[in-house]
Amino acid sequence: MPYSKTDELAINTIRTLAVDATFTANSGHPGAPMGMAPVAHVLFNKFMTFNPKNPDWLNRDRFVLSNGHGCMLQYALLHLFGYKLSIDDLKHFRQVDSITPGHPEAHDTPGIEVTTGPLGQGFANAVGLAIAQAHTGAVFNKPGFELVNNHTFCFFGDGCAMEGIASEAASTAGHLQLGNLIAIYDDNHISIDGDTKVAFTEDVMKRFEAYGWHTQWVKDGDNDLESIEAAIQKAKDVKDKPSVIKLTTTIGFGSKLQGTHGVHGNPLKADDIKQVKEKFGFDPEKMFVVPQEVYDMYHKHAADGAAAEEEWNKLFSKYGEEHKDLHADLARRLTRDLPEGWQNKLPTYKPTDSAIASRKLSEAVLQSIHDIVPELISGSADLTGSNNTIWKGAVDFQPPNLGIGDWSGRYMRYGVREHAMAAIMNGMSAYGTIIPAGGTFLNFVSYAAGAVRLSSLSHQRVIYVATHDSIGLGEDGPTHQPIETLAHFRALPNMMVWRPADGNECSAAYYMALTSKSTPSILALTRQNLPQLEGSTIENGIKGGYVALEDKEADITLVSTGSEVCICLEAVKTLKDQGLKARVVSLPCFEVFDAQSKDYKLSVIPDGIPAMSVEVMSTMGWEKYSHEQFGLNRFGASGPYKKVYEKFEFTPEGIAKRAKLTVDFYKDVKPLRSPLNRAFQQLI
Amino acid sequence: MPYSKTDELAINTIRTLAVDATFTANSGHPGAPMGMAPVAHVLFNKFMTFNPKNPDWLNRDRFVLSNGHGCMLQYALLHLFGYKLSIDDLKHFRQVDSITPGHPEAHDTPGIEVTTGPLGQGFANAVGLAIAQAHTGAVFNKPGFELVNNHTFCFFGDGCAMEGIASEAASTAGHLQLGNLIAIYDDNHISIDGDTKVAFTEDVMKRFEAYGWHTQWVKDGDNDLESIEAAIQKAKDVKDKPSVIKLTTTIGFGSKLQGTHGVHGNPLKADDIKQVKEKFGFDPEKMFVVPQEVYDMYHKHAADGAAAEEEWNKLFSKYGEEHKDLHADLARRLTRDLPEGWQNKLPTYKPTDSAIASRKLSEAVLQSIHDIVPELISGSADLTGSNNTIWKGAVDFQPPNLGIGDWSGRYMRYGVREHAMAAIMNGMSAYGTIIPAGGTFLNFVSYAAGAVRLSSLSHQRVIYVATHDSIGLGEDGPTHQPIETLAHFRALPNMMVWRPADGNECSAAYYMALTSKSTPSILALTRQNLPQLEGSTIENGIKGGYVALEDKEADITLVSTGSEVCICLEAVKTLKDQGLKARVVSLPCFEVFDAQSKDYKLSVIPDGIPAMSVEVMSTMGWEKYSHEQFGLNRFGASGPYKKVYEKFEFTPEGIAKRAKLTVDFYKDVKPLRSPLNRAFQQLI
Repeated sequence: MPYSKTDELAINTIRTLAVDATFTANSGHPGAPMGMAPVAHVLFNKFMTFNPKNPDWLNRDRFVLSNGHGCMLQYALLHLFGYKLSIDDLKHFRQVDSITPGHPEAHDTPGIEVTTGPLGQGFANAVGLAIAQAHTGAVFNKPGFELVNNHTFCFFGDGCAMEGIASEAASTAGHLQLGNLIAIYDDNHISIDGDTKVAFTEDVMKRFEAYGWHTQWVKDGDNDLESIEAAIQKAKDVKDKPSVIKLTTTIGFGSKLQGTHGVHGNPLKADDIKQVKEKFGFDPEKMFVVPQEVYDMYHKHAADGAAAEEEWNKLFSKYGEEHKDLHADLARRLTRDLPEGWQNKLPTYKPTDSAIASRKLSEAVLQSIHDIVPELISGSADLTGSNNTIWKGAVDFQPPNLGIGDWSGRYMRYGVREHAMAAIMNGMSAYGTIIPAGGTFLNFVSYAAGAVRLSSLSHQRVIYVATHDSIGLGEDGPTHQPIETLAHFRALPNMMVWRPADGNECSAAYYMALTSKSTPSILALTRQNLPQLEGSTIENGIKGGYVALEDKEADITLVSTGSEVCICLEAVKTLKDQGLKARVVSLPCFEVFDAQSKDYKLSVIPDGIPAMSVEVMSTMGWEKYSHEQFGLNRFGASGPYKKVYEKFEFTPEGIAKRAKLTVDFYKDVKPLRSPLNRAFQQLI
Repeated sequence: MPYSKTDELAINTIRTLAVDATFTANSGHPGAPMGMAPVAHVLFNKFMTFNPKNPDWLNRDRFVLSNGHGCMLQYALLHLFGYKLSIDDLKHFRQVDSITPGHPEAHDTPGIEVTTGPLGQGFANAVGLAIAQAHTGAVFNKPGFELVNNHTFCFFGDGCAMEGIASEAASTAGHLQLGNLIAIYDDNHISIDGDTKVAFTEDVMKRFEAYGWHTQWVKDGDNDLESIEAAIQKAKDVKDKPSVIKLTTTIGFGSKLQGTHGVHGNPLKADDIKQVKEKFGFDPEKMFVVPQEVYDMYHKHAADGAAAEEEWNKLFSKYGEEHKDLHADLARRLTRDLPEGWQNKLPTYKPTDSAIASRKLSEAVLQSIHDIVPELISGSADLTGSNNTIWKGAVDFQPPNLGIGDWSGRYMRYGVREHAMAAIMNGMSAYGTIIPAGGTFLNFVSYAAGAVRLSSLSHQRVIYVATHDSIGLGEDGPTHQPIETLAHFRALPNMMVWRPADGNECSAAYYMALTSKSTPSILALTRQNLPQLEGSTIENGIKGGYVALEDKEADITLVSTGSEVCICLEAVKTLKDQGLKARVVSLPCFEVFDAQSKDYKLSVIPDGIPAMSVEVMSTMGWEKYSHEQFGLNRFGASGPYKKVYEKFEFTPEGIAKRAKLTVDFYKDVKPLRSPLNRAFQQLI
């Protein structure tokens, strides 16, 4: 269909809204919105189905702005289509407590699918959204019921294209033949350092071809709406590969500085705005102008989307008659509640049960619950046998033509791509029907730090299965032994870092990870065997901390996690021989323990006696729960793990020695308060 | 030259040493050494020049084993060539305190150039080593004096090829046309999850072509030594591009499990070892056998290397006669000392000087010292104008044919590739003639966490210029505002995290960063302006912490860093109005402060009064220096920075309110000790 004056007007409306919002905020990025307004207009109006009145409708097409700094493009679209984002919200762009922050945040703004801005993340999220669609469609679609068949569209720029995370994700998407994924590369030749020729001269389309993508090039992304439309249509027609369209555009199209980095991250000057508006036929004296015919055009498309959802709702209802169980399952998943009684499947252990590595305990949980929690999709960054993330009989999520799995498979082979794995899991979680769990060594969760941060910030229920959690991994040595890692992620807001000491605590960690709908988890798990503890129960574990061994006459509290709890229990005997009484606290998760009542917490780490923490890594953060800290503020060592523990004195004797020094040191302090007593509360 | 029986014997010696060492350790990776022994033998004997008696000789060829888990390959080679690595060291493979740890560590083992194992790192290090050669050659080579012309060779496997960091580095190397870099891709089709077809089906060579590399394929890497040699020779002949050789090999060649992942990460079984040794003509009853003719062959090559160094030393001596200043400069650089008197160039400030953002203060340092410290190579991950990492007149490091710089240029355009930037800087530092500094936003140093960790572990003098260090960056919002970042890197051993409060502290941070020969630094710098403080001097700053405002009758010590120190100083006035006296401590670097004498430290944070920390991010870690902590244990907000500070109460009033609560809370505690008093020392 030929494009009209109204199309042009709509495109220029988006451009001038971006100009006005960044000018008003005196901050922001007008260049990308001005350059990508044409493709956004075509994509949203000709190809995407969505209902602004219900941004959560399952089968909506997904849109990800990976170059999130161009968010005024997305905010303008959301406003024009009638999402709950007013013209006032645009006027409050980049202001405190607005829903139009400097980069798009999924949790805060209706219609934003994933939180982007940190470059490359959105691209990888889009791969996750596409995986989730493919999987969900394979599970729920039935003849006559094409319930889940949406596409995922992603815009990305040169910055994203340079980031390794996007390379990892693109390689993954190519391998997986994700025909439902269409990415549009804003080839504007400009990044913050100026012309991309200073650092980025590779052949991007050839690289994507190497990954197995279908590629196209639209040479005039500024004006040639017909070619843009044809390219997107072609990309949709290619069913067996993800598609990328290289779209050559002019950054800041219309500005006097168009095509330069001067228009990338700074608002336009007043005189430039004047000429832009005159050029586009807008009144230069007015701001935030939306012509009625533009609203009309966009609202009509929104109404079509609402009608599509209504049709879908009818279909889904009819589906319920013919496929009752599947209907119930999908309806339940959308509430994010787990199936009733699922928690009864969590393994429990008695102290007489044998010692087991917590990575194996984690495997036992997955083995037990995978049937009753069908939305759980496990996987590993090429460490399946080490992370123990697979259950018996698990089918790989793979393109069926490879002969090694199918789209309904629930085991992901992420490859050695930790960062993309994390961001893909964020996308899978954001889709709404999946709880992703992915494994790597704890030390290499750090490779994924950029995406792990966004799991927390964007409230995704993602589970990181982080095995080989300390010097206890032994021979692989310092390059693989985490020291700073737990401190890092414990300092990250809205992240549960779990380090279970035994089987019941491991089940507790999974209980919390799976039932906390908007908080991700890192499960730090051992390679070495751990005994089953007295006093450990799931009920205790889910409090984040509890008394593992009580002694009302104790001289000291030993506070510990994971593999060191059992050594502390041994140290109690050593101390007894020296005439000292000790009690032991297991504190598998700071974040969850912090949320308990003050009374409870003080019953765990009480006033009156000193507390000493014991954990074989950085002591940072432990001062909050203890007066003294026994840890490892240096790199580890390569050797059999028991020898490594001995080298660093993490033995009953090494603990007892320091416990005695601690007791002596605090004898004269009155009152000796629990470190949990604070002068004031932290802001939340 | 045709290959002899001795060549075959040497290759099989490497293989059997790897088999014996992993069997003895009952741990490790025999597969890669067995598969790559042929190419290693050819490369080291036919192409590489090095002197095992002086592993530090500048013009040696560099070798990087990016698939570091195959380190028995490298240890075997080092032993055979006569590096200081005995057969006993091989027998102590993966034992505590050995020089043959589970992955190669540059700091511990002679002949290991860079610390590898975390996948993808070595590949990016190799790019850094190649950059350093190109730059050093451009600066020092003169007609008749080809002083610096070594090659960098890198082995990498499928794991490295999947990692985003390697993609970033490969794109960078292609852009830079690094003809001195030759990478050999061990195409063995096996990773830990089994056949690479489960996750990695891209066309790797096509991808490298897209990056601008020269590519070749040797189909029989197990046997075809002639083709291996021809391919490496061809790669050396290609001067204007980096080269990659895809070498198809059989992992675990010779084992009954060859070609499977069963031989990747586990020692061979006894019966398998028996048949391997028989197949290779070795006595199955003997272990760690090196035939004398193999030693002879390798020692001869080592002697050639020693002779080459001797020639080079003569050349360098003659160079000193004709190019006295350059000779002195290069000789000095190799000591890692800075030019005498350089520190006098560091800017100093008076309290009356104007308020300046610390990113601009950092720029002033670079502007001042770049002339006198020629080994300083700055750069940015595409944030030059935001990081302020460039000095006036700086020339880009670029291939001359691009017309935008040359090989002697000292400004790196890393592109939006934080992780590769960090690992490339590690490689540049490891070369020995360069101090690299690279910029990004503090929040995105986390993207590089894997490589930053290796800066610390491998003792590289690398400087991270980390601007936009807090909520003070304002409008970009929570996606860009660090919360957990300083805690993360402060918990990393051997890392100086600096957060200067003003100009003199910024100069102090650079002083320490540049003079600490084996410790990397992160400089956390503001976007917003900071006043010049009373009491701040370079001498104070280099202690890591000092009293910025003394009051011998103080009721409380406020301990702070960076942009919050000046707010604390304002808060002192607010407190005075409320009848409370406060002193203020600036603590720009924990790591450096910790190294001061106890007396000094207690003079800064004394006994008797409570201390409260003030920093606009995670409080984690501050308990070590304060009784109470005022921080931000949640994500930030998008808005003008002063509004954001107000929202979270980081104002004189907000500080004063909490200081008063702190004073009241600790009134009854006797004795009130400084938190610096500890019951026992940490292991170091």
